[in-house]
Amino acid sequence: MIIEKVLIVDPVDGEYCGSVEIEDGVITKVEKKDSIPNKILMPGFVDTHTHGYLGIDCMSASPKEFEKWADIVLGDGVTTLFPTTVSSSKEKLEKVIESFSKTEHPSFSYLHFEGPFINKEKAGAQNKEYITNFSKEKLPDLKDKVKIITAAPELRGFKELIKFTKDNDIKISLGHSNGTFEDFKDAYENEVRRITHFPNALRKFHHREVGGIGAAFTFDFYVELIVDNVHLSKEFVKLVYKIIGPERIILVTDSISAAGLKDGIYELGGVLVKVKDGIAKTEEGTLAGSTLKFIDAVKNFKQITNCSLKELSMVSSYNALKSVSIHGGRIKEGYPAKLLLLDENLDLIKVL
Amino acid sequence: MIIEKVLIVDPVDGEYCGSVEIEDGVITKVEKKDSIPNKILMPGFVDTHTHGYLGIDCMSASPKEFEKWADIVLGDGVTTLFPTTVSSSKEKLEKVIESFSKTEHPSFSYLHFEGPFINKEKAGAQNKEYITNFSKEKLPDLKDKVKIITAAPELRGFKELIKFTKDNDIKISLGHSNGTFEDFKDAYENEVRRITHFPNALRKFHHREVGGIGAAFTFDFYVELIVDNVHLSKEFVKLVYKIIGPERIILVTDSISAAGLKDGIYELGGVLVKVKDGIAKTEEGTLAGSTLKFIDAVKNFKQITNCSLKELSMVSSYNALKSVSIHGGRIKEGYPAKLLLLDENLDLIKVL
Repeated sequence: MIIEKVLIVDPVDGEYCGSVEIEDGVITKVEKKDSIPNKILMPGFVDTHTHGYLGIDCMSASPKEFEKWADIVLGDGVTTLFPTTVSSSKEKLEKVIESFSKTEHPSFSYLHFEGPFINKEKAGAQNKEYITNFSKEKLPDLKDKVKIITAAPELRGFKELIKFTKDNDIKISLGHSNGTFEDFKDAYENEVRRITHFPNALRKFHHREVGGIGAAFTFDFYVELIVDNVHLSKEFVKLVYKIIGPERIILVTDSISAAGLKDGIYELGGVLVKVKDGIAKTEEGTLAGSTLKFIDAVKNFKQITNCSLKELSMVSSYNALKSVSIHGGRIKEGYPAKLLLLDENLDLIKVL
Repeated sequence: MIIEKVLIVDPVDGEYCGSVEIEDGVITKVEKKDSIPNKILMPGFVDTHTHGYLGIDCMSASPKEFEKWADIVLGDGVTTLFPTTVSSSKEKLEKVIESFSKTEHPSFSYLHFEGPFINKEKAGAQNKEYITNFSKEKLPDLKDKVKIITAAPELRGFKELIKFTKDNDIKISLGHSNGTFEDFKDAYENEVRRITHFPNALRKFHHREVGGIGAAFTFDFYVELIVDNVHLSKEFVKLVYKIIGPERIILVTDSISAAGLKDGIYELGGVLVKVKDGIAKTEEGTLAGSTLKFIDAVKNFKQITNCSLKELSMVSSYNALKSVSIHGGRIKEGYPAKLLLLDENLDLIKVL
């Protein structure tokens, strides 16, 4: 297949007019051509943090439901997603892995385990009953199906978790943490490079203990951002764009099963969640994930920061994959042909 | 007088070897020369925020005491200081102006009024009894002796204060404020360009209301910093250096009358202050100014940020004067010859 007369948007080479050839799902040729493009061609969106969609919940989805989920969000431009668990029992997590292992969908490779090795004080909407310190025995056989584990660096067992994840080719993402600057610095020095839904469920920034927020402003962490204009103010998003920069931002939805559905009462890992005006909260009023569509996160980010399309391809695709050492997110020979055609308003025309 | 074979440190032209000629207190010639310098020549330090020193308190100092104070800190390299009041009665403030008006010392030009138009919720160590909204009648005749007024932008009367300060060639410095990002943004748009002892006594930074801290990270405010390793952690100072930059940082001491004296019980505007291990706190445990020497603030800043000498001359002299539109803080023809000779450890050799 040849895609012609498009504005090619690559996170490294930038924006230019040209054509792209695809064979067997791989980009075989990219050519720069002087022409007036009529569409934008971007790498497919990658969502590394999503708990569910349209009534489907990662914690209970059957293989068919997982695939239906992937199909639905593909319609919003998400060509790779990491279904995300919440803190739960070993048995329940084992069942998630079993079910996910049986899926066959090009959008799936791995799960994201958000917890259970997080800090109860920063549980957010997670069920505290299942939150615990790390030990290998508390995890089921991961069957090479987990790529990200969100964990708090200040917890006992974190050093062992670092070893375990290195041995098993898994990336730690720091989150749900009351950790200090030193805790985050230590993790960084141990090659941890990711922070989960920054800075939600982190210790507050203080001028005498700058915490994980200060660490993210200091070191080269990748940071997940929920840009739904609810979790974060626009001014905060602008500051992250200015201070951390588009090279380190990863847009995520953190969507829950209520996403795409009407307001009402839903469930997240055994915790009741009330959705009103599209905003999901626990009974205590804590934000409990989002009902955000990925394409809206992309549009919001563009609108808030006025970033370039090149930068938009970084934050919506390339960085997410790079943060977990997966080859992709570029429009270049040899890369997987997971591509999106968009119009100038960033409305999706076609997923390739 | 000719000063030869020195490393000239200018906040604009940078660092170079050369000689400087002085006549009648003014720099008349600066010459670049290829030689090996044996000393550092920097602009004299400027402290825009200091309540007292060695038992002398701005609120009660006689003209003689004011002059003694200026003489003492001159020995630490401070060639310009702005004695700083705290929130007090109109009568008391009037007496301070009267006394200050009678001084004759080259280090003096203006006072800094810290309050009384600040937010009670962010009073810090200030006496809440005297904190109030602005109206012209609440101020004594300032006799052109006040250059800076620290005020909270969220208070009633702030718009009138802006008008009053513009009419009287006074600069507002935002501080002791619970103001939001919008409050600070509005002030910025009304040409306010300064923040007092950032971010002490400001609203905490939050990702849904980034407040004055977020505004300082967003706009080009000058920020006073108390770099005594007590008010701010080293990581925070590093972040301010990275995000706001040396072009906008103003080192201040915020020293109180206990500075240079032994630990004990002191007073600040009618509030009892206990000094232990050099740290001044109210009975409630709130930090109450410092016992910092300016030269130590300079050394601390250099040690924490590893900044250049050029940058050090910005944060210790030039920015402070620029923030209040006063000509000075440079080593260049036509500038006042307020200069310091220092050795390579930044120990003061001589004040010129």
